[in-house]
Amino acid sequence: MMISSHNIDSFFNPSSIAIIGASDKEGSLGKVLFNNLLESKFDGEVYPITISSETVMGRKAYRSVLDIEGNIDLAVIAIPAKVVNSVLRECAKKGIKSCIVISGGFSETGEVERENELKRIVEETGIRVVGPNCVGILDTHSSVDTIFLPSDRMGRPRMGKISLISQSGAFVAAILDWAAGEGIGMSKIVSFGNKADVNYSDLIDYLSKDEDTSVITIYMEGVGDGRKFMTAAKKAITNKPIIILKSGRSKAGAAAAASHTGSLAGSDIVYSAAFKQSGIIRVYTPQEMFDIAKAFVCRKKAKGRRVAIITDGGGTGVIATDSLADYELELAALEEDTKNRMRDSLPPYCSVKNPIDLTGDADAKRYEIALTEVFKDDNVDAILLILLFQLPTLEDDVIKRLLPMIKNSPKPIIVISPGGGYTRMKLKELEEECIPCYQSSQNAVHALSAIIDYYEYIKKKKL
Amino acid sequence: MMISSHNIDSFFNPSSIAIIGASDKEGSLGKVLFNNLLESKFDGEVYPITISSETVMGRKAYRSVLDIEGNIDLAVIAIPAKVVNSVLRECAKKGIKSCIVISGGFSETGEVERENELKRIVEETGIRVVGPNCVGILDTHSSVDTIFLPSDRMGRPRMGKISLISQSGAFVAAILDWAAGEGIGMSKIVSFGNKADVNYSDLIDYLSKDEDTSVITIYMEGVGDGRKFMTAAKKAITNKPIIILKSGRSKAGAAAAASHTGSLAGSDIVYSAAFKQSGIIRVYTPQEMFDIAKAFVCRKKAKGRRVAIITDGGGTGVIATDSLADYELELAALEEDTKNRMRDSLPPYCSVKNPIDLTGDADAKRYEIALTEVFKDDNVDAILLILLFQLPTLEDDVIKRLLPMIKNSPKPIIVISPGGGYTRMKLKELEEECIPCYQSSQNAVHALSAIIDYYEYIKKKKL
Repeated sequence: MMISSHNIDSFFNPSSIAIIGASDKEGSLGKVLFNNLLESKFDGEVYPITISSETVMGRKAYRSVLDIEGNIDLAVIAIPAKVVNSVLRECAKKGIKSCIVISGGFSETGEVERENELKRIVEETGIRVVGPNCVGILDTHSSVDTIFLPSDRMGRPRMGKISLISQSGAFVAAILDWAAGEGIGMSKIVSFGNKADVNYSDLIDYLSKDEDTSVITIYMEGVGDGRKFMTAAKKAITNKPIIILKSGRSKAGAAAAASHTGSLAGSDIVYSAAFKQSGIIRVYTPQEMFDIAKAFVCRKKAKGRRVAIITDGGGTGVIATDSLADYELELAALEEDTKNRMRDSLPPYCSVKNPIDLTGDADAKRYEIALTEVFKDDNVDAILLILLFQLPTLEDDVIKRLLPMIKNSPKPIIVISPGGGYTRMKLKELEEECIPCYQSSQNAVHALSAIIDYYEYIKKKKL
Repeated sequence: MMISSHNIDSFFNPSSIAIIGASDKEGSLGKVLFNNLLESKFDGEVYPITISSETVMGRKAYRSVLDIEGNIDLAVIAIPAKVVNSVLRECAKKGIKSCIVISGGFSETGEVERENELKRIVEETGIRVVGPNCVGILDTHSSVDTIFLPSDRMGRPRMGKISLISQSGAFVAAILDWAAGEGIGMSKIVSFGNKADVNYSDLIDYLSKDEDTSVITIYMEGVGDGRKFMTAAKKAITNKPIIILKSGRSKAGAAAAASHTGSLAGSDIVYSAAFKQSGIIRVYTPQEMFDIAKAFVCRKKAKGRRVAIITDGGGTGVIATDSLADYELELAALEEDTKNRMRDSLPPYCSVKNPIDLTGDADAKRYEIALTEVFKDDNVDAILLILLFQLPTLEDDVIKRLLPMIKNSPKPIIVISPGGGYTRMKLKELEEECIPCYQSSQNAVHALSAIIDYYEYIKKKKL
């Protein structure tokens, strides 16, 4: 039977899920898995499958998926490795399209034949498998959640448009938890462990057409079939940016990767060249990955590299100006008319030369004046908006007042606001409206440069 | 009269403070200033000085410092610029040693003669001045706080050992607020604006001998008297590390700095060379500054560059290994005995080769085993301890169990734990004991390399 890429969708949007290995046992993986799904907003049917009891958490349990009358779209398998393949055959027989094999005990522990058998089942039946030896899937839109870590230890990120593909399990758990703490909005997260079937290219294909995904992020140690990967990435990139955190860069790191997931990290220079040639954005830390990803979610294109900085603190303006140079962006030379009009409307001690310094007693009105002018100025391609919320003259409702302007901006706007409690509260108001906000100028400018580079690449490619 | 450097101490440890310009008026700087001091834990006398009313916030007000009978150590001046100098003379007459001039309206607005007059008063009377045009001082140990920003907008960092010197006001406010949000412990913070008198070298001298300061951080746009600065820094550095964030690095940034504080940023290459030659650590973002500073607070020396990594997530171990190479650190080759003993005590699926992978079901016991072994291993100079708290097998009291080992470690230990709410709660337990913790491997390894580089520099210098 042909392997169908259509089946990928049932991993994310199943009408019904069977949890094979569901359990009542305190602390067991099967309990966390089943409980997480019941507690989530997933509104389809969830069937517990177990040979150990008649009910699980008060629900009627089944001994096999074959005992269930209704249709099942997705099976999640969390049972001892030695019985996984026979259960997988039952799933195929039942007509289940997609299967997440959480269980470990395959090639990663030397059980290569067991993994080959799993691959044969996939080939013969057309069932699609994520795993084995993986944490599986989290979809914030459909609420499918097979990450078997309890929510009091690992927060789930809020609904958003950043999708993530990864091999490593614990790493994904840690960065999702971190993203949840940071308030970063995410969409579909897949961690596929040994990737016996569903792999990078399948998922890149799928996510490039997914309406809930604006940007694809990937954590990889090694890629496996490099040619297939690059073909999928090159095709996807005209639709959506792809950001990759590739580890095993150093000789020692590559050796560590080999012993971790058996990945051949390959020559790092080759990866860098291939990524660059295909317009893939390479990053080196999870922070960078999300800093850049969230800037893409606003989906505003820049026409060029000339940036206006608006600030209420001179020092922060200087630091941001330095950062522009680091990322080969230019401080825009404002038109004389722009400067003259600002000079007429702003207090005389404000600086109307870029960086525009509204000074330490700035209020919303001054920001409105400056934004209005830089929107109109043809020498400005993008805007860095620095708001130091510590200054008490900034009104409490400053965000509410500026938000319509920022949202309707004809140019990308990146907000920089270092600070603590009050500042974070204000930034949350902006982030919930998909405005990219940063604590650090350097991170903000890096993200802005990535947007500008990406659209330059796409434009050249289309010529 | 000679300018005395002894007087610097009364800025930080005064027995009594006069707030000149204290006020009851809602939203006024004088009210915020007076209120912040009253609400702080400062336990000396605080006198309001004003010509506008008989009392301020229910306290008897005085028209002049000369009307006060008792001794005054520190005066804070927040009145219109044109009367500052005559009030400053009164302060000198009263025998006040130290004065913070918050008021703007001096050289920064073209009033050069007014600033020269202030300098003459300093020379003639020996009074020391921080400012004018500054936010002044925050000392978390003595609770002196002249930062005129309300605490609901700008959080104050907790007591700690990192001191900060800066020229820029709003920048300091923003990063202190950020540090407060991050739980970073700080000691003495000085922002001296126009630096008409007290400058970098005075403060470096003072802080290098201050028991409450383990590390000196500096934000500068331009240095003024470079030779004096370097002399002070070279002398201080054998006692304490100095970390500098120097902005105005780029051509555009230097121009922005000139228009902001009138600083001549100077050639960036010259700065870099001078810093390097003197063992000063140069950073490029506030995040880097505090990442490195907090690593120095634990004050543990490393003998060399060989690092052991202990992790419960393979992927994070790979990323950390890559970071080591970025900062010219080595993955330690563990002694055979170390590996054998770990192999005997750990489950067989754990990896005892560096990075030591305790795997996804690790518990405190496994960390105890690994730490015990790397402490003893002569091939290990420093330790990266990765704790992914998302994993439910890590006991809730894991920190309590590991803390004595970590605190008594004979080698520097840096903790890496990416995560959200639960993780941050756990890290707080460590940070309160001065254990440096990081969300990102890259930041952690950068900090570790700075410690190692610093002690190598000091060792060479002493030879």
